[in-house]
Amino acid sequence: MKLEDLILVSVDDHVIEPPNAFARHMPAKFKGREPRVVQRNGRDVWVFEGRATGYMGLNSVVGRPKEEYGMEPLSYEQMRRGTWDVKARVDDMNANGVLGSLCFPTFPGFAGQRFQQYKEARDVSLAAIQAYNDWHLHDWCNAAPGRFIPLALIPWWDPAAAAAEINRMAKQGVHAISLSDNPALHGFPSIHDEYWDPVWKACCDNKVVINCHIGTGVKAEHASDMSPIDAWITSMPISIANSAADWIWAPMWKKFPSLRMVLSEGGIGWIPYLLERADFTHRHHHEWTNADFGGKKPSDIFREHIITCFIEDEFGLRNLKDIGEDMVAWECDYPHSDCTWPVSAEIFHAQTRHLTDAQINKISHLNVMREFSYDPFSILGRENCTVGALRKQAAHVDTRPLLGLGGARPMREPGKPVTSGDIKRMFAAADAETAL
Amino acid sequence: MKLEDLILVSVDDHVIEPPNAFARHMPAKFKGREPRVVQRNGRDVWVFEGRATGYMGLNSVVGRPKEEYGMEPLSYEQMRRGTWDVKARVDDMNANGVLGSLCFPTFPGFAGQRFQQYKEARDVSLAAIQAYNDWHLHDWCNAAPGRFIPLALIPWWDPAAAAAEINRMAKQGVHAISLSDNPALHGFPSIHDEYWDPVWKACCDNKVVINCHIGTGVKAEHASDMSPIDAWITSMPISIANSAADWIWAPMWKKFPSLRMVLSEGGIGWIPYLLERADFTHRHHHEWTNADFGGKKPSDIFREHIITCFIEDEFGLRNLKDIGEDMVAWECDYPHSDCTWPVSAEIFHAQTRHLTDAQINKISHLNVMREFSYDPFSILGRENCTVGALRKQAAHVDTRPLLGLGGARPMREPGKPVTSGDIKRMFAAADAETAL
Repeated sequence: MKLEDLILVSVDDHVIEPPNAFARHMPAKFKGREPRVVQRNGRDVWVFEGRATGYMGLNSVVGRPKEEYGMEPLSYEQMRRGTWDVKARVDDMNANGVLGSLCFPTFPGFAGQRFQQYKEARDVSLAAIQAYNDWHLHDWCNAAPGRFIPLALIPWWDPAAAAAEINRMAKQGVHAISLSDNPALHGFPSIHDEYWDPVWKACCDNKVVINCHIGTGVKAEHASDMSPIDAWITSMPISIANSAADWIWAPMWKKFPSLRMVLSEGGIGWIPYLLERADFTHRHHHEWTNADFGGKKPSDIFREHIITCFIEDEFGLRNLKDIGEDMVAWECDYPHSDCTWPVSAEIFHAQTRHLTDAQINKISHLNVMREFSYDPFSILGRENCTVGALRKQAAHVDTRPLLGLGGARPMREPGKPVTSGDIKRMFAAADAETAL
Repeated sequence: MKLEDLILVSVDDHVIEPPNAFARHMPAKFKGREPRVVQRNGRDVWVFEGRATGYMGLNSVVGRPKEEYGMEPLSYEQMRRGTWDVKARVDDMNANGVLGSLCFPTFPGFAGQRFQQYKEARDVSLAAIQAYNDWHLHDWCNAAPGRFIPLALIPWWDPAAAAAEINRMAKQGVHAISLSDNPALHGFPSIHDEYWDPVWKACCDNKVVINCHIGTGVKAEHASDMSPIDAWITSMPISIANSAADWIWAPMWKKFPSLRMVLSEGGIGWIPYLLERADFTHRHHHEWTNADFGGKKPSDIFREHIITCFIEDEFGLRNLKDIGEDMVAWECDYPHSDCTWPVSAEIFHAQTRHLTDAQINKISHLNVMREFSYDPFSILGRENCTVGALRKQAAHVDTRPLLGLGGARPMREPGKPVTSGDIKRMFAAADAETAL
């Protein structure tokens, strides 16, 4: 397939919420209590219910020189505009040849973890979740019809309210929610608990996909404070293998056979190993562990229900048949530091050259369109959805590294690796500087 | 290659120390303070410096019916004799067609963790480590010349003493030590600290390989108490990916270029993914993290220094060229629950059928012989080392499941999966029953 004929849909990008995101959508009852941005020590800081959260640089570095990566940018002015402005985002998608994008939240946490923390303020937290969902759908996604796959947040503390929110959003065309890959690690019931059944049911009733982003549950360990941060970055995606195994053995698939979940940003190259290991474990141990898949293998469960995705994954793509070409998707990860903008199309093209056109179309967009009930072609016309067509609309977009944006306090000290300890200290200092 | 012509050397098995292991080798000064076995509530329990440790069943289940796996066996009488008796062990190796075996300790912890815990008793702890090493070398390995690759423990609290112990054992032909894959998680300095330089130097001086067994540092998380234990078992080996990344970015390779380490029981199928991810991380991030491999890639460091191994790994073996055929070894894991005794040779044979004889010989024994300075052929004659030759000596070995060994309290309740919570409760109960 020619580069310009590719159609790229990403199941993992991120939006930096603009300062006014919540105000317009918060119900009158809670006016003044919506999450809002304040300035602290030259930084833009989100505040909700008396707690402050600064942005962390690596979440919004797209377009900046790599030498500057670190804690910055810390204010909207220091970020590439496409991180928080939807029109600029679409420009950046066009420049990158990307048709469609599913965007995780930033300030709320990728799975809305922040809104689950306020035990004494459940009502305003639910209102904030709903305001986020309304902003995300109406002001972000619907600003560019056909270009986004909307993603809703749900309250974890009340499965009936969560189901109601899924139903409410689904009526407006939302077919994806974000959830922690392991809510038990946040003090909520395990995914093995029937507590979650109303959520699974609402997802099935409305064909809603559960998106579990790395870092929202089980996390890569910082091996030690002296460990170079590169080691931690390397092991982040594969760490979700722990949750992948947990979901394989979870009980909801039998009750809700049409349910689907995504291991967002997990990569794909390690999947065949994990599935073989899962089958080995089942074969060796089921006689004493009492595991029962009704004649199926653990790998069957995974392949039926779990969608995986990749940024770059030459090895995984070379072994696509061992993963299953119908459940693999692509992701861009804009505007995070792993993202390959503005040459994502070129990298995808180079890595999929050995696949058939049918296989390429499946993993570049058809699998996502089917699983997420996403139909950009009916809105835009298929001929306007290709890398070639989109890039024609992006002639005015300047993709050169953004010099002089300001706010850069690079981590580099010549000859000294940036360690996990450095990053921890940086986060602690940022927390101290932004605390209310 | 024909099944009977295979030569199998395992880099990961386990010895259950017999009750008298330490007594004979403890110096006179500490007589009476050596680790010893006492009976508590029908169990055989190890005691050292006032603390007791019961055996946990899954570490010694070989040969028992799988339905009985669980906490048992808890006494020597309830274990297959080959777990703790070296003559019976060699019989079991012969029956399985296994020529050589590197055995990790059990009571001391796979890396001797237990002996590192007694801050007030460093002298007796060092004596216990040395007694273990002497027992392991002279009473276990040397009881069957050519059949074992001896593995020494070292004190972590004193690198100079550790280096001295490496030197002492190396003079007697020991070319392997066991070490935690992440000593920082046990409160010791990180592998990135030059604290360990005397250890790395002693290893290089004596061509000693560092063996890091899964579970000795970073561990798979129990996702939740309700999670079926199968999920945890599945994710145990791949969890060492975190430490694999940490060792890739560690500083010792530049100073000690001949150093080697093993990811014991880590599996191999996920390695190509991790190496690609490591190279991606380096390419994307080195400009701000300051990582510097002197023109090499992270994957080069891994392939030069890190040995991997597998029990069963069809996918990994199919992608052997992406891992590196010169640094892959096989393991049996006798007598743990993942072990495929007595048909390990058949499984190895079936999974390596697509490889050339040269490749098979490398991963079945030649890589290990080279890296561990292990030369069974000069002792036994190559013609006596094959699966076929060894099995001829095992006609008297009964490999049928051991019924009626006693001590079985199976975990199974019909229809109810064994969970992580069940296992935790079982361990806690065992601790309570065996406490002094």
